[in-house]
Amino acid sequence: MSLADIISVGKSSQEMRTLQLSAVADSTGMLHVNDRTALSEILSAKRNGTLQKLDGWFPLKDAREAVNSADADVIVDCTTTNYRDAQPSLDCMLAAIRKGMDVVTANKGPLALQMRLIMDEASKSGRSVKFGATVGGGTPFIDFGMMCSAGTEIRSMSGVLNGTTNYVLTRMGEGLSMQDALAEAKDSGIAESDPANDLKGLDSAAKIVILANSLTGAGFSMKDVAITGIEGVTVDSLAEARRAGGQLRLVSTYDAALRALSVSPLPVSISDHINVSGMNNAVTYRTANGNEYTLIGAGAGVRETARAILRDLLSLPRR
Amino acid sequence: MSLADIISVGKSSQEMRTLQLSAVADSTGMLHVNDRTALSEILSAKRNGTLQKLDGWFPLKDAREAVNSADADVIVDCTTTNYRDAQPSLDCMLAAIRKGMDVVTANKGPLALQMRLIMDEASKSGRSVKFGATVGGGTPFIDFGMMCSAGTEIRSMSGVLNGTTNYVLTRMGEGLSMQDALAEAKDSGIAESDPANDLKGLDSAAKIVILANSLTGAGFSMKDVAITGIEGVTVDSLAEARRAGGQLRLVSTYDAALRALSVSPLPVSISDHINVSGMNNAVTYRTANGNEYTLIGAGAGVRETARAILRDLLSLPRR
Repeated sequence: MSLADIISVGKSSQEMRTLQLSAVADSTGMLHVNDRTALSEILSAKRNGTLQKLDGWFPLKDAREAVNSADADVIVDCTTTNYRDAQPSLDCMLAAIRKGMDVVTANKGPLALQMRLIMDEASKSGRSVKFGATVGGGTPFIDFGMMCSAGTEIRSMSGVLNGTTNYVLTRMGEGLSMQDALAEAKDSGIAESDPANDLKGLDSAAKIVILANSLTGAGFSMKDVAITGIEGVTVDSLAEARRAGGQLRLVSTYDAALRALSVSPLPVSISDHINVSGMNNAVTYRTANGNEYTLIGAGAGVRETARAILRDLLSLPRR
Repeated sequence: MSLADIISVGKSSQEMRTLQLSAVADSTGMLHVNDRTALSEILSAKRNGTLQKLDGWFPLKDAREAVNSADADVIVDCTTTNYRDAQPSLDCMLAAIRKGMDVVTANKGPLALQMRLIMDEASKSGRSVKFGATVGGGTPFIDFGMMCSAGTEIRSMSGVLNGTTNYVLTRMGEGLSMQDALAEAKDSGIAESDPANDLKGLDSAAKIVILANSLTGAGFSMKDVAITGIEGVTVDSLAEARRAGGQLRLVSTYDAALRALSVSPLPVSISDHINVSGMNNAVTYRTANGNEYTLIGAGAGVRETARAILRDLLSLPRR
């Protein structure tokens, strides 16, 4: 089976599209793909550590070089998020846009820090930037927000947007220490090996920034969010929330009138719709015409992220 | 202010549409509207009982005559639902479609009994039938279902789709008798004066039929639904559900593999996302690719219904 066969996908039989893989790159180097390269070969080489032995591989000085030497219409960015300066992803995205490429990204960093700059550049160049994988992966929180703001506007939102912290808080509520809950989350593949961005609330903050910007056209960034992580949460604070008839959740909020964004551990009533447990995410949207909707679904995960990237690829304008 | 001014509406400033009211009809007669008729005059006459004294009014033999004598591109059907034969609404819709009119309806009857016939007729005549007001009024359960079935399909759904029964069950769970809970619901305008269709589960059944047909293209009708209403629910059955850690809800279900639809009072766990209280509606959608989403929002109500009708009118293809 050739690459082209594997990546022939469609939303429905009426709308079939063929995606052609042009190159793949990781932190060590880049591989130009030709018609004879089997996708399974690339996947298995990567799983075993390196692409280096494959035909067409060459070392890279830095990530920008990957963009410069790519001959493609679209770049899919799956690099690691960093909330300091979002590099090298930010520069790569901008270089790709200026080179005339569309961008599909799973990296929250550039959007959380410089969303307005990126969208302005894309609009100037007539290119698309799609980022369905950055918020709620498996669940279309952005698209649904667009749907319910049609003809009105979003006044406020509150949500639980990070699976790792929600899992840890759920398990701590069941009596585990934070350390044990975290070890369990890592063992079962829920938490990343370095969950610092989750625990500090940075992942939740990035998501509420991207969600608010997408739905309102505002240009918020991470520095606009008042952030408290869950590192200070104790078994005592969980018990206190429970005595008040609720559970402690890491809640992200957006308020249009106050232009305020926040992330902090808050007691959430058992009957509150955003009081989801485990890996679930939830967002309540309140609109100017008085409606209130809550959407609940699985947050990020390997399969959810892959699905969101595929959905984004399929939604790009045809060339 | 003239009628045309009042009914100039748009989703956004980019997409402004002017709706021209041509005629209004109720069970007594019909009023042809001209440029000098003020909308406020019509509303105030109707509020005070009858349109009969207004200029342009004439008596109607039956509802079909209203369709025949209308000179308009769209008919908005707000007649009362009847699940016996869906008349006179069904004949009016078919007559309107055959006359070349688009249809916006808030009446569940024709769709719950003859949806396939209606959609086939509309498709043959190249006309649109919109029915956003029939399921969840304020909350886009149909549109969201379409969104999450893109690229996959709905395997099953379960939901709480009727506000009146949910309010009654919530209040009974708090200790009221069914009679008292129902009286309270009527007093506060939640329940209709004759809530029989709600209590018998017919309203919930109609909604799951319309939802399933819209999302799968199937041609289900009311007779395909196994229906148990809430008339038999006692304070004892509520207490039993509570002892099992749940609450009794009138649950509508759809299963694609079994081609099965049902409505019945079921114990729902406190942590289940469809365990909403009061007037809220909720639906959980499960897709073939393993995703599960829950949407929660207000169900029907006067304002919600009006908003859904307006949204449908705006979404009609331009002529």
